[in-house]
Amino acid sequence: MATHSFQAPKGTRDFYPSDLAVRRHIERAWRSASIDCGFDEVEGPTFEHLELYTAKSGEGIVNELFSFRRAGGENDYALRPEFTPTLARMVAARAGSLPVPVKWFAIPNMYRAERPQRGRLREFVQWNIDTCGVEGAATDLDVIACAILALERLGLTPKDVQVRLSHRVAIAQMLGALGVSAEKSADAMTLLDRRDKLKPEEFAQRAEALGLGAGGVARFDLAARATQPLAEPIAKLAANIGISPEAFAALDEVRAAADRAGILEWCSVDVGIVRGLAYYTGTVFEIHEISGAERAVAGGGRYDGLVELFGGPKMPACGFGMGDVVLANVLRDRKLLPDDGSALLPRPDAFVISAGGELAENELPRLVMQLRRAGLHVRTSAKATRNVGKLLGDAGKARARFAVILGTELAEGSVALKNLDASSQELVALADLGERLISSR
Amino acid sequence: MATHSFQAPKGTRDFYPSDLAVRRHIERAWRSASIDCGFDEVEGPTFEHLELYTAKSGEGIVNELFSFRRAGGENDYALRPEFTPTLARMVAARAGSLPVPVKWFAIPNMYRAERPQRGRLREFVQWNIDTCGVEGAATDLDVIACAILALERLGLTPKDVQVRLSHRVAIAQMLGALGVSAEKSADAMTLLDRRDKLKPEEFAQRAEALGLGAGGVARFDLAARATQPLAEPIAKLAANIGISPEAFAALDEVRAAADRAGILEWCSVDVGIVRGLAYYTGTVFEIHEISGAERAVAGGGRYDGLVELFGGPKMPACGFGMGDVVLANVLRDRKLLPDDGSALLPRPDAFVISAGGELAENELPRLVMQLRRAGLHVRTSAKATRNVGKLLGDAGKARARFAVILGTELAEGSVALKNLDASSQELVALADLGERLISSR
Repeated sequence: MATHSFQAPKGTRDFYPSDLAVRRHIERAWRSASIDCGFDEVEGPTFEHLELYTAKSGEGIVNELFSFRRAGGENDYALRPEFTPTLARMVAARAGSLPVPVKWFAIPNMYRAERPQRGRLREFVQWNIDTCGVEGAATDLDVIACAILALERLGLTPKDVQVRLSHRVAIAQMLGALGVSAEKSADAMTLLDRRDKLKPEEFAQRAEALGLGAGGVARFDLAARATQPLAEPIAKLAANIGISPEAFAALDEVRAAADRAGILEWCSVDVGIVRGLAYYTGTVFEIHEISGAERAVAGGGRYDGLVELFGGPKMPACGFGMGDVVLANVLRDRKLLPDDGSALLPRPDAFVISAGGELAENELPRLVMQLRRAGLHVRTSAKATRNVGKLLGDAGKARARFAVILGTELAEGSVALKNLDASSQELVALADLGERLISSR
Repeated sequence: MATHSFQAPKGTRDFYPSDLAVRRHIERAWRSASIDCGFDEVEGPTFEHLELYTAKSGEGIVNELFSFRRAGGENDYALRPEFTPTLARMVAARAGSLPVPVKWFAIPNMYRAERPQRGRLREFVQWNIDTCGVEGAATDLDVIACAILALERLGLTPKDVQVRLSHRVAIAQMLGALGVSAEKSADAMTLLDRRDKLKPEEFAQRAEALGLGAGGVARFDLAARATQPLAEPIAKLAANIGISPEAFAALDEVRAAADRAGILEWCSVDVGIVRGLAYYTGTVFEIHEISGAERAVAGGGRYDGLVELFGGPKMPACGFGMGDVVLANVLRDRKLLPDDGSALLPRPDAFVISAGGELAENELPRLVMQLRRAGLHVRTSAKATRNVGKLLGDAGKARARFAVILGTELAEGSVALKNLDASSQELVALADLGERLISSR
């Protein structure tokens, strides 16, 4: 067997305990924020029918898919590159019976057959928040507030990351003012979103064809660079870039909703955030580390046509996706993750030690199981040594809160209970031990 | 697009909130038992190099693999059909630096390209517990005790499921007594494990070639049927099947360890449990629903050669896998799962209602976010109605513990707090609301 077979495939990860502790820490923030905000968790298959992606996402995404067919099977499948098609398919299938609004979250693994690079892997975890059935900026901001709640719980502040907001209607009106006709508006947005991937000449040529001459592109660039806090009046930005404030009226509703939700300071206007996917219809946003050095932490917006696109009824919808890779980079840069992820592992309540002797040796496995049955996290040593000093050292390395020492006092039904944080020690009756450990949590 | 594209692929599942709540309930029992027993969580890639499975698992498993190659790529991959090769690869890669014993658990998704049937799907979740570095029956039983702890937390008792134990040495000695030479012992075990998949004539022919004549097979069948509680002396079973008790000496150590761990009543001897995989070396076991009507809930044992097989040093090891599908069937049959999984979803702490008026309308989004920031699970209505009676009905449907009503008292800084379980109501100052809800949890 080739040596590479003994390594994780390129762009995927082995999560040793200290690595997974970091991922679980992030997922706990995602999950608790989702639940507190009233979203219910869903999950779908890891792979879907290939057509679910090719038919709606265009040719472009096919090269980024891991696709396969079961030996002897008829259907082509693909590892999911995003959760939105699965979500839309699931909502569409039960649209008649689901309570409205549908408020769902998911934390699925995702797969992209791209070249791995900083912030982009071939397998990653992505938090998805979606709501279907309710229109209006208040719902958009409810979704965004959930993202902010999770980021707050991870220790981030508005000085670390900002939600950069725009609105499809505002962008369309601005593009109109720059010379793009209404029919070409969506194509212009897709082009602007893909700008960094195109050669300057190619971009200029395509922009011209859409009605965006060099002057228009320059003014769009000016607008895209003229970000400002969402709290500030949009007239200021409009004046700076020479476009009528009416073009940005849709953003006033977004500001009012952000204000009422108490998250205004987390939000900026950034009309350069156009989002590439054609299905966005209203508010669009990305969450970025404030220096702009990293890829987007999250991206989303309103896509009112989504459920219909996947075979369901017309249903307003809004959501976002947030991956674990960029977020962990941002947290690490801000020293919001420990150098050694082991510090995030659950601490043992007790480390049980036998000081030797038949009584202790027989009692130890019984006691360990009894304490575990009581819901306590209990460890013990597999070593042959009965040197209590050495074993206490192991208890410390295991980060146990208490050591329980089975010694000579066992004959009188007692054990030594050592508080490893306070370095204090006392005798406790065996019968009281479980309750004592639970109450000292 | 074909209609089937809008359905989950055959053998996979869409988990709507009430479905996922059931799965999470099972996973919580697995995870909490793992942690309480001192196992650390790990995870690997969802797909591995195809060779990781084909080189060590033989041709047989290849037909059950979902394999694929990235467009333009050189390597073949396969969705993981089991976690053990990933685990062994990860232990082998860091064998020099990992603390001994390695005690790991994982709850990965698994994939088998088989025909879906009761208890077997193409995508499922499997709890894995593994320990590497320590020999002896006490460690085997420590692993088994962890499985029992999880089953206990799910409401199962020794009257519902039994751990059916055997030991490779005992089986080999019994086969020896029946006429199988030591060299043919492993082949005979593989054959016996695959018995139900073979035609009777084919089985008889192969058994004969291994030294198991019709008489030997009949006595093996007698032994395999002669299960008994592990607590009872093995001499009784040996006498029943006419084999010297010395052949089963290895099981005495297993019994003593089960007794010390306090799980003897969960365990039976079943020398018919041979396990098909060649890498087992000592204790082997399966957990079965007591009537035997379902497939195995779990299977595992000692595989001391495993880490070496995947490129690491010699290291004793023991572990098991437990899938979610059969376990959920057993729990459902025993009425240990609610008919509607929604009952397992987290209950909202509060459902916030506006009785109308500008003050309430403006306060509601602010209050909702403030309570969520305090770690409370808070829901509200997206409906336009301000009919408090109707909205209280929605609060009840959402299973909220409290309703918070923003009414005329808001002008004096108070809200009505209605306990939906006790149907009592009181006025609470807005400033005290969060603390009041947290303390009443």
